[in-house]
Amino acid sequence: MSTLINRDVPPCELCEVDGGELIVKTDKLRVVLVDDANYPGFCRVIWNAHAKEMTDLSIEDRSAIMQAVCKTEQAIRDVMAPQKINLASLGNMVPHLHWHVIPRYTDDLHFPDPIWASEKKTAVDAAALNARRALLPALRTALVSRFY
Amino acid sequence: MSTLINRDVPPCELCEVDGGELIVKTDKLRVVLVDDANYPGFCRVIWNAHAKEMTDLSIEDRSAIMQAVCKTEQAIRDVMAPQKINLASLGNMVPHLHWHVIPRYTDDLHFPDPIWASEKKTAVDAAALNARRALLPALRTALVSRFY
Repeated sequence: MSTLINRDVPPCELCEVDGGELIVKTDKLRVVLVDDANYPGFCRVIWNAHAKEMTDLSIEDRSAIMQAVCKTEQAIRDVMAPQKINLASLGNMVPHLHWHVIPRYTDDLHFPDPIWASEKKTAVDAAALNARRALLPALRTALVSRFY
Repeated sequence: MSTLINRDVPPCELCEVDGGELIVKTDKLRVVLVDDANYPGFCRVIWNAHAKEMTDLSIEDRSAIMQAVCKTEQAIRDVMAPQKINLASLGNMVPHLHWHVIPRYTDDLHFPDPIWASEKKTAVDAAALNARRALLPALRTALVSRFY
């Protein structure tokens, strides 16, 4: 018997796995915490169904995912007080709609460039980074309380 | 007589100038075409008033700017048929809310990385780039027709 897998379509990572530490899951989307040693508090808001672009969603669903992005941004600001929030929906490698929500600090590895640019520094302040990592339990709680 | 300029606050570039070729301007926001030789069709949606983060806007205004981002994305998709759209609100250098809306092609200078990463290629296909530049008049028309 043949399988039902369509070999013409490459498998989509974000259709298969959560894509990070699952903090919030609704019927439409999920919020995960990204395991990035240099960017504690980096979250992703991932649409559950496979969609490529914002304009592939209905107006209601575009609003739903942006409301989730803003709730995530607000929780990060409340708990981690970054100098700036960076938001991005790229998906060039994994074309399944997901938003990066990234707390940025003037002393981080790439500031003021985007985190995808070359590193600006050879090292970051370990004490500052540890202090930010220590906020992750509070961030998990803040995210959950904004969604439930 | 002293001037009314507050010397304690650094001047904000996006409070002073349009920030690109002005295509659309409403009472709340504007859409400009960015002059980037490698990324024809690159647009920015800029909030007119000085605000730093999405969550500094009211719920209604967040919706207004994202609707404008989506109209811009749709106009770019309709006219330029990119392989992917990249959306980003960064503002590390100019902390005045603005969205990058960038058509991406598999043969562009950075694909599949974000445009802020190191270049992946030493040159891009000049014919492909010229063909995309030739679509700019149609893109201007499509943007205007989506907003007015």
